[in-house]
Amino acid sequence: MFTKDKISITGTRMSSLTGVRAIMKDIIETLSAGGEFFNLSAGNPVVLPEVATMWRDISNDVINSSEYAQIVGRYGSSKGYQPLVDAVVHDFNERYNLSITERNVVITPGSQSLFFFGTNVFSGPFKDGTVRKILLPLLPDYTGYGGVTLNEGCVIGKTPKIRENERGHSFKYELDLDSFCIGSDIGAMIVSRPNNPSGNVLSRDEVLFLQNSAIKAGIPLFVDSAYGDPFPGLSFTECQPIFGENIVHSMTLSKAGLPGERIGIVIAEESIIEAIESFMTNACIHASRFGQALAAAAINSQRLTEVCRNVINPYYKNKFSLITNAIHEYLPPSIPWHLHEGEGGMFAWLWCKDLPTTDWDLYQRLKQFRVITVPGSTFFPGLQSQWKPAQECIRLSLTASEHHTIEAVKLISSALKEIY
Amino acid sequence: MFTKDKISITGTRMSSLTGVRAIMKDIIETLSAGGEFFNLSAGNPVVLPEVATMWRDISNDVINSSEYAQIVGRYGSSKGYQPLVDAVVHDFNERYNLSITERNVVITPGSQSLFFFGTNVFSGPFKDGTVRKILLPLLPDYTGYGGVTLNEGCVIGKTPKIRENERGHSFKYELDLDSFCIGSDIGAMIVSRPNNPSGNVLSRDEVLFLQNSAIKAGIPLFVDSAYGDPFPGLSFTECQPIFGENIVHSMTLSKAGLPGERIGIVIAEESIIEAIESFMTNACIHASRFGQALAAAAINSQRLTEVCRNVINPYYKNKFSLITNAIHEYLPPSIPWHLHEGEGGMFAWLWCKDLPTTDWDLYQRLKQFRVITVPGSTFFPGLQSQWKPAQECIRLSLTASEHHTIEAVKLISSALKEIY
Repeated sequence: MFTKDKISITGTRMSSLTGVRAIMKDIIETLSAGGEFFNLSAGNPVVLPEVATMWRDISNDVINSSEYAQIVGRYGSSKGYQPLVDAVVHDFNERYNLSITERNVVITPGSQSLFFFGTNVFSGPFKDGTVRKILLPLLPDYTGYGGVTLNEGCVIGKTPKIRENERGHSFKYELDLDSFCIGSDIGAMIVSRPNNPSGNVLSRDEVLFLQNSAIKAGIPLFVDSAYGDPFPGLSFTECQPIFGENIVHSMTLSKAGLPGERIGIVIAEESIIEAIESFMTNACIHASRFGQALAAAAINSQRLTEVCRNVINPYYKNKFSLITNAIHEYLPPSIPWHLHEGEGGMFAWLWCKDLPTTDWDLYQRLKQFRVITVPGSTFFPGLQSQWKPAQECIRLSLTASEHHTIEAVKLISSALKEIY
Repeated sequence: MFTKDKISITGTRMSSLTGVRAIMKDIIETLSAGGEFFNLSAGNPVVLPEVATMWRDISNDVINSSEYAQIVGRYGSSKGYQPLVDAVVHDFNERYNLSITERNVVITPGSQSLFFFGTNVFSGPFKDGTVRKILLPLLPDYTGYGGVTLNEGCVIGKTPKIRENERGHSFKYELDLDSFCIGSDIGAMIVSRPNNPSGNVLSRDEVLFLQNSAIKAGIPLFVDSAYGDPFPGLSFTECQPIFGENIVHSMTLSKAGLPGERIGIVIAEESIIEAIESFMTNACIHASRFGQALAAAAINSQRLTEVCRNVINPYYKNKFSLITNAIHEYLPPSIPWHLHEGEGGMFAWLWCKDLPTTDWDLYQRLKQFRVITVPGSTFFPGLQSQWKPAQECIRLSLTASEHHTIEAVKLISSALKEIY
């Protein structure tokens, strides 16, 4: 038994689970204790038949190709499986009229690992004696950003401006431009676009503002496009990717039907690509090649674009409409609930304004009503001071069946009536 | 362009390439410059037809199983794909009469990542203000151990005792038991068994000695079984794995035909498994699941055991005999060359005793003779002081064709005659 005094500071830091992960145990125990639950907590995407069929078809092609023995039977380069790197270069140059080369691309074992490598290259102790941090310019944001830095306390999150919609019961987060500044202790910024958990999509102007700030500060801006265009294309509003100076654009195929294979794709300037690639060489050599070969074939054949546009996007867009309608139908108008505008992603984000209790208590109370959600405060990594709205939200997954979604909303309504 | 002042100490450390990786660039450039070369530098295993066929058959089974959509289409647990975890528990309990449970097993994205997670949990700065290090008890050892620690200078290697065989031109490394001690600044030990690069296999007694020392010091002993039994089973002498207190036994399928899929398997006590699992959750969520599903099927069906025993082991064992015979036939007996006893692994290790130059110069000179090798000093990570034999060795890969192997040995002979 290795007690804590045998484990390094890094080991202690990295073996603690933060954010959503800390409550996953509770959720798993709740679900496995039995009884029917309406589970709106899932982050695991739905296996959509058309998408699964596409990956199975391509898998068969890859396995029966003459390349297969070399794909799984050889080590690869840390940059990535060359046909995938080539496919990304070609596709993005064509699609967005860019002129990237393979020097601007690296494939990582999932986008989580990209953020692990990327944040630790740009945060933590520096030679000049400073300790730099990662800035999340718009909270709430992906809970995993809280766990990737090797050094504790190296993530700083900024609270957003809230724009309440005049129609009522609807709102949107916006960058707080007035108070925005980047201290010299900031090494990099990260935003997810579309945002997990809120479904917010930063406007083009907001991204350009952040890019400009990043250029002035001489730091990279990581734009986590895990739900964005072109893959998986889970945006319901204009969300054109933005490339260029200081932007590290990252994608994953996890929401395009391939989470099990851990494929992250990064487009950035050469010096950043090189740093991530070398870190990967030392830490894990390279991403698995089978998934990379699938991705290359899916991109080159345009089948990935098609299923994203025709299957995945409509599925979640319809699900968002469904839950929006249910919420408007069943939640009492007298309660000041606000649903975040559904601009993209896989979740609905409900702000229970002036909630008489905390989001954690709400989560527990909802469990008693047989509804599992995720308490919103887990999505505020690096929150610097108390901010009441951070404890008034819950994240609702769009992955449950229509029936479960509607029933869950009815039960949330009952719970809210009891609480308010 | 992100200059060095924008990159953290960790970033600087992890983006530098050490050991063999530092000369890979030179090798790639040499090979791509054209001309015929006899390449004995490769670390990439040979794609053996029977092995490739097995993985292709199993791939087809997995893809056409009802599970497939769930395997690639869902996130998994950081512990690993459950059928693989179960297969490992069952196989090892049966095979070695153990009583491990799934709490003793974790699957990592390759064994490199295990050493990245593992070494950083047990080395670097500690809360008590000390900085602990990783001890390699028997140099030479795997070059990659030099690159995995996040903190520079955290690997200490001990030179071995050399036992020259009375037959002549043959030798073996042994643990230097007399001088062996573990300072309070050591957080963990690592040994590869069979050893990369030397082909040495630590005897049962040597492992038990190290285990006992680890227990006394209260630190783990990582036994890197990348070439060991039962998978890939590349031992040519008795090399029964040893389990138990303080031992972290690690394996990979990289030398059993699946390097592209990055599958590492760890068996250890629960507290270590938990630390590695959580680190993985934060850094990369989990290993790719397709490769894990293949591994589960290959282990459960016993086909993996069969190809390891009947195909992979004989292939490298025969190759070792071939190169041994060629070396004895062509290298001049008057030169004090010594070949390490071939006890396992994928390499032959030639010690050119009293070499009138360095191993780096020998490497360069051999290139002029159109032979590519790897200079031996790259396999001495953490060497604490000059040790002449560290600069007198070259590593010869057993992956070249028979013809290339024999021709390369003839050319090495010519070069050595010129040099001595």
